[in-house]
Amino acid sequence: MPLTANEPNRQTWIETSATTDFPIQNIPFGVFLTRDDIITIGTRIGDTAIDLGALHQLGYFEGIELTDDIFLQDSLNDFISDGQKTWRLVRNRISDIFLKDNPALRDNAEHKSKILFRLDEIEMQMPVEVGDYTDFYASKEHATNVGSLFRDPENALLPNWLRIPIGYHGRSSSIVPSGTPIRRPIGQTKPGDDGVPGFGPSKLLDFELEMAFITTDANHLGKRISVKDAKDYIFGLVLFNDWSARDIQAWEYVPLGPFLGKNFASTISPWIVTLDALEAFRVEGPKQDPAPLPYLKQEGKKNFDIKMQVAIQPENGEETVVATSNFKYMYWSMAQQFAHHTVNGCNVRSGDMMGSGTISGPTKDQYGSMLELTWRGQNPIKLKDGSERKFINDNDTVIMNAHCEKDGLRIGFGECSGKVLPALPL
Amino acid sequence: MPLTANEPNRQTWIETSATTDFPIQNIPFGVFLTRDDIITIGTRIGDTAIDLGALHQLGYFEGIELTDDIFLQDSLNDFISDGQKTWRLVRNRISDIFLKDNPALRDNAEHKSKILFRLDEIEMQMPVEVGDYTDFYASKEHATNVGSLFRDPENALLPNWLRIPIGYHGRSSSIVPSGTPIRRPIGQTKPGDDGVPGFGPSKLLDFELEMAFITTDANHLGKRISVKDAKDYIFGLVLFNDWSARDIQAWEYVPLGPFLGKNFASTISPWIVTLDALEAFRVEGPKQDPAPLPYLKQEGKKNFDIKMQVAIQPENGEETVVATSNFKYMYWSMAQQFAHHTVNGCNVRSGDMMGSGTISGPTKDQYGSMLELTWRGQNPIKLKDGSERKFINDNDTVIMNAHCEKDGLRIGFGECSGKVLPALPL
Repeated sequence: MPLTANEPNRQTWIETSATTDFPIQNIPFGVFLTRDDIITIGTRIGDTAIDLGALHQLGYFEGIELTDDIFLQDSLNDFISDGQKTWRLVRNRISDIFLKDNPALRDNAEHKSKILFRLDEIEMQMPVEVGDYTDFYASKEHATNVGSLFRDPENALLPNWLRIPIGYHGRSSSIVPSGTPIRRPIGQTKPGDDGVPGFGPSKLLDFELEMAFITTDANHLGKRISVKDAKDYIFGLVLFNDWSARDIQAWEYVPLGPFLGKNFASTISPWIVTLDALEAFRVEGPKQDPAPLPYLKQEGKKNFDIKMQVAIQPENGEETVVATSNFKYMYWSMAQQFAHHTVNGCNVRSGDMMGSGTISGPTKDQYGSMLELTWRGQNPIKLKDGSERKFINDNDTVIMNAHCEKDGLRIGFGECSGKVLPALPL
Repeated sequence: MPLTANEPNRQTWIETSATTDFPIQNIPFGVFLTRDDIITIGTRIGDTAIDLGALHQLGYFEGIELTDDIFLQDSLNDFISDGQKTWRLVRNRISDIFLKDNPALRDNAEHKSKILFRLDEIEMQMPVEVGDYTDFYASKEHATNVGSLFRDPENALLPNWLRIPIGYHGRSSSIVPSGTPIRRPIGQTKPGDDGVPGFGPSKLLDFELEMAFITTDANHLGKRISVKDAKDYIFGLVLFNDWSARDIQAWEYVPLGPFLGKNFASTISPWIVTLDALEAFRVEGPKQDPAPLPYLKQEGKKNFDIKMQVAIQPENGEETVVATSNFKYMYWSMAQQFAHHTVNGCNVRSGDMMGSGTISGPTKDQYGSMLELTWRGQNPIKLKDGSERKFINDNDTVIMNAHCEKDGLRIGFGECSGKVLPALPL
């Protein structure tokens, strides 16, 4: 099916700025509360939110096979279950409805009053109910940095890393949409000289700059999905902050992996940008040496050129960009992660989320966590207000952004932010 | 509220054998398909399944605040969300309805035809939709055995183990009810002399003998639950087989923990036995030395005396019991696991599942996995048909059972079984 929604020359009758993350070529999907406190599935063009539930009720999706209440839900899971053909029909249709020269909705003031919202009239929710969330560890630079810091600089990259897209299961319940405050976690830390573990608020609270992709029902238990087919089961991507308490993590993680050092919260950007909208931004990935085993072999442009940045904003202060990175640095691609995840027959469902792991680039200003940026606090970062950070302070807000840009077309993800609140009293 | 349903002298008008796992003092909860292919929530006395949806429609729960469709659902999540007071009212009422001397249903043939089913008329389903599944590692004997086998016999127990109920996140999507066949997983294994990883069906497929508990909504993100309060948020327990592919696990698990070696399948017994039904079987746990940190300190009888066993049945053969163990051997109790899981503010929801980890006892016939029982294949086990097992063969069925017994009262879990099918072709 032609992705007409992607045509770069399309213009819309909705007012948009030249630098918006959400031109008519984006058409992301999200869930929001309207000014009447009704929950609906929606999209966004520029700074205008569009109620897809209302659009559907008013007949604008005629001819596309959709149940009546498909957009009147508190998650996208059922719509995502409808599969790639339906996503494409709907995205193309939305693009047509908002085309500059299409008067159907443009000139219908009554319909517009029911369908269009200013951003300050809506409240973004979690876009999906996440069944299972997996986090990978797919940036070679990040794995090397962490291996140096946590284990042994001489053997930073473990022998399995170049063979396997290493991943682990994370916690679904604590994934929250951008804007949700994050409570500083309490926990055990490594014993001091008296042999007794420490206990209290984490002193080494960190972010991790990641992307995550959201899947549709891919396979039944026992079946596997090939690298080639994986893309058909990826609905779209969000920005992802995998909050991490480094002191809790360091004490607990051997031998079963990260647990309470991670599961107190993860933040996502609330608009899911479809894989289709990102097609024009495919690029080659890093050369893989040794060659992956046949079930992980992938030809062609397996990565995406998505510019990412993370900033820290102290309370009442200005924000300071502390790192920039790029999704193209991923050593293992999303398709390789997907194929690996299902090679043993593990089933993947609609709304499942798979994080990339921290995306660090080759230079020191491209590291995707404070752990790496300050080299475990050895090199503090100076913020614009003159204060220094080794890790994240109480009342700091961590703000991530990401976008693609090419030939004058910009497709972005909006903001993924969270403010850190002080720990609860012990 | 008095747990009248637990009174040991209660007798029922339903025919039951003296050795049933499901006397009138049990009253577990499950989900099944009826002979008319209707899905309903039910309970069980002896070998009679009881349709709670029908009981409710016919007015037998009058006076208890319940929504009309609370039992006409494909999972127990909403009922569990109703909270402990409601569970107790319902369980007591069911016990009353089936009391020997209560004629209301006993003498109403028409109602009985709508409510009661033989076991061969129904098909058990997953009792809950599992939001998040966590697996702990709470048996000291198991952790010591695995540490010896996978790492270093001299330092088998890692320094954090006696301080933290070590746990990790598992995969929810692949948890299946007893009777579901399990496909042998395919995956990567440690490189041989040529440095290239192996790839193919797992050669070291294993079971893990565990219990798992199911929670209700306990806390909002950022709040914690104390050891003392934890029991109010535990709905009940099931038997749990955490299938494990030891060769896949050994190659992948450093540094982020088990992943594809575990997430291809886990099997549960389909009837959730309530924590209330197990009250009479509380016992002291192992002495904890060093003393746990204050947030993990627990007084009184923190463990449960639940006898467990696991058997292997070759195709067309007789079953051989290969191990017996007991849930009382757990070093870290369920309440301690719960308090630890939420100490950092991680939120727990209705239907979440927390596994104990393999429950191994102190003697060699009490080890809860083939890895330990055969000491990684060094000491094969002889089955009744004369064949030997180092691990699990294709077409073997692994059958777990568990029950409590005291003063003539027996409360059991029924069966947790799964047959291993050959791997799919590469």
